[in-house]
Amino acid sequence: MEQKSMDPQDDVPLVFVHRPPSFHFPFKDRLSTHFNLLDPLDSPDSTHFFLGSSVGVDHLDLSDCRRRGIAITNASFAFSEDVADLAVGLLIDVLRGISAADRFVRSGFWAKTGDYPLGFKLGGKRIGIVGLGNIGSQVAKRLEAFGCIISYTSRRKKPPSVPFAYYANIYDLAMNSDVLMVCCALTEETHHIVNKEVMAALGKEGVIINVGRGALIDEKEMVQFLVRGEIGGVGLDVFENEPDVPKELFQLDNAVLSPHSAVVTPECFDALEELILFNLKAFFSHEPLRSLIEFE
Amino acid sequence: MEQKSMDPQDDVPLVFVHRPPSFHFPFKDRLSTHFNLLDPLDSPDSTHFFLGSSVGVDHLDLSDCRRRGIAITNASFAFSEDVADLAVGLLIDVLRGISAADRFVRSGFWAKTGDYPLGFKLGGKRIGIVGLGNIGSQVAKRLEAFGCIISYTSRRKKPPSVPFAYYANIYDLAMNSDVLMVCCALTEETHHIVNKEVMAALGKEGVIINVGRGALIDEKEMVQFLVRGEIGGVGLDVFENEPDVPKELFQLDNAVLSPHSAVVTPECFDALEELILFNLKAFFSHEPLRSLIEFE
Repeated sequence: MEQKSMDPQDDVPLVFVHRPPSFHFPFKDRLSTHFNLLDPLDSPDSTHFFLGSSVGVDHLDLSDCRRRGIAITNASFAFSEDVADLAVGLLIDVLRGISAADRFVRSGFWAKTGDYPLGFKLGGKRIGIVGLGNIGSQVAKRLEAFGCIISYTSRRKKPPSVPFAYYANIYDLAMNSDVLMVCCALTEETHHIVNKEVMAALGKEGVIINVGRGALIDEKEMVQFLVRGEIGGVGLDVFENEPDVPKELFQLDNAVLSPHSAVVTPECFDALEELILFNLKAFFSHEPLRSLIEFE
Repeated sequence: MEQKSMDPQDDVPLVFVHRPPSFHFPFKDRLSTHFNLLDPLDSPDSTHFFLGSSVGVDHLDLSDCRRRGIAITNASFAFSEDVADLAVGLLIDVLRGISAADRFVRSGFWAKTGDYPLGFKLGGKRIGIVGLGNIGSQVAKRLEAFGCIISYTSRRKKPPSVPFAYYANIYDLAMNSDVLMVCCALTEETHHIVNKEVMAALGKEGVIINVGRGALIDEKEMVQFLVRGEIGGVGLDVFENEPDVPKELFQLDNAVLSPHSAVVTPECFDALEELILFNLKAFFSHEPLRSLIEFE
């Protein structure tokens, strides 16, 4: 967001809305009582202010924003609990085979073939969190209650108040984990951060959960590792070429596939509305913003 | 288990094994180094001691056991964490539609029809736990970490150290809950404890998770409530006539169906083995037993 002088005919700040056409923007009416909204999807003519919403920042030119002094806030404050809920749900699903067992029951196999194969306990599992930000921290909080053992990798080691073991790189984290929870932002540095060396280090019973962005994982390699039985399972909310999903995954019971829906709850939209309204008011009143992206 | 005089020719205690044929009893070899095992599924001729394993006690004549002074221990100590993991997994699945969304992705609908419908946040949901024993307590511990608000009903109010609101009956609990987690034992008193009045009290956005026994819920009524949209969703690990599941459920996206697999993990079998070995040794040494069933 960048502050400029207001149109002299109008005291209400102008806000330029940038959104994907699929984002329905349910709280537009409420925002329009506080701001003059310019939404190019309504009328394609204006360039004043910028209002988008996302957890990820991979669609923004961060260095250009830094050079121009543009502040960026993201939606992780509003979204992180919902994303963490789904991440934990995907993990339980992969370990206990919930979706696969549901297919087994629906297709009538329970009565025909007897018991469904064993699942795995959460307690005692070594969970490696890739990116201990808002989302990763919420994931850690939940999984501690299941008796999991948490460690993490992150750009920097967190302060001593964070009680989890730190690994300086994802390879060492994978070597010491049963599960990788991929919760970080997609940047040039994190593109394909889960590569074949990391998957080999995780091992054939290892599980990968991805609620970040598809391109954090080398998806082609991941499919091969799964097909060859060289990793134990995956729970994926994101894919490299959404909405296309590699067809090989459709045949696998140890893959749980979610259509990028980690943040799609009404409670999340309410929290997002509050956050956007708060930040716009704060911006135009020269007050501190919430969920400000820190440039490296 | 009932202690009797030993066969004079043999110092090793005799243990009579009672198990369903489908229970594979993987630690038989280890037990047989400590005890003389009599398993009627090996050779159908003996009546000495009793070794079964289950969380539920609905297959035992409790009043007859009490009259004869027979001690009963159950497996909830070994099983409760796994059952609680699955219970929470089923709840996240119902609220966030994980299994249904996985079907949506696998059938290729994501690319064809766009976004999957909204799910619901766990945080702030009022969770009513039916039976705050080993399993219910583990469920509460996990859901607190998601920001849920816990209350319960139970035969008696728990001591003040238990910080959750208590309701004396399930109807009042349902009136004040978004979700019922059914975790109690099946007895004469709890048969169909979730009846149509309770479902009506829970309301049309309410969710029921059952990891206890099928007959805790009036299943026919539940199916009608679901078909008419009068409750919001169900996650069921147990059914009234297993392995038969009401066919109407196969058509519903707001039902998650699990083939009575709450305890089926290798870690759980290990814990069960430890518990059985501990209790048999304790019994024959006149030491206190773990997971002893208290008669009412």
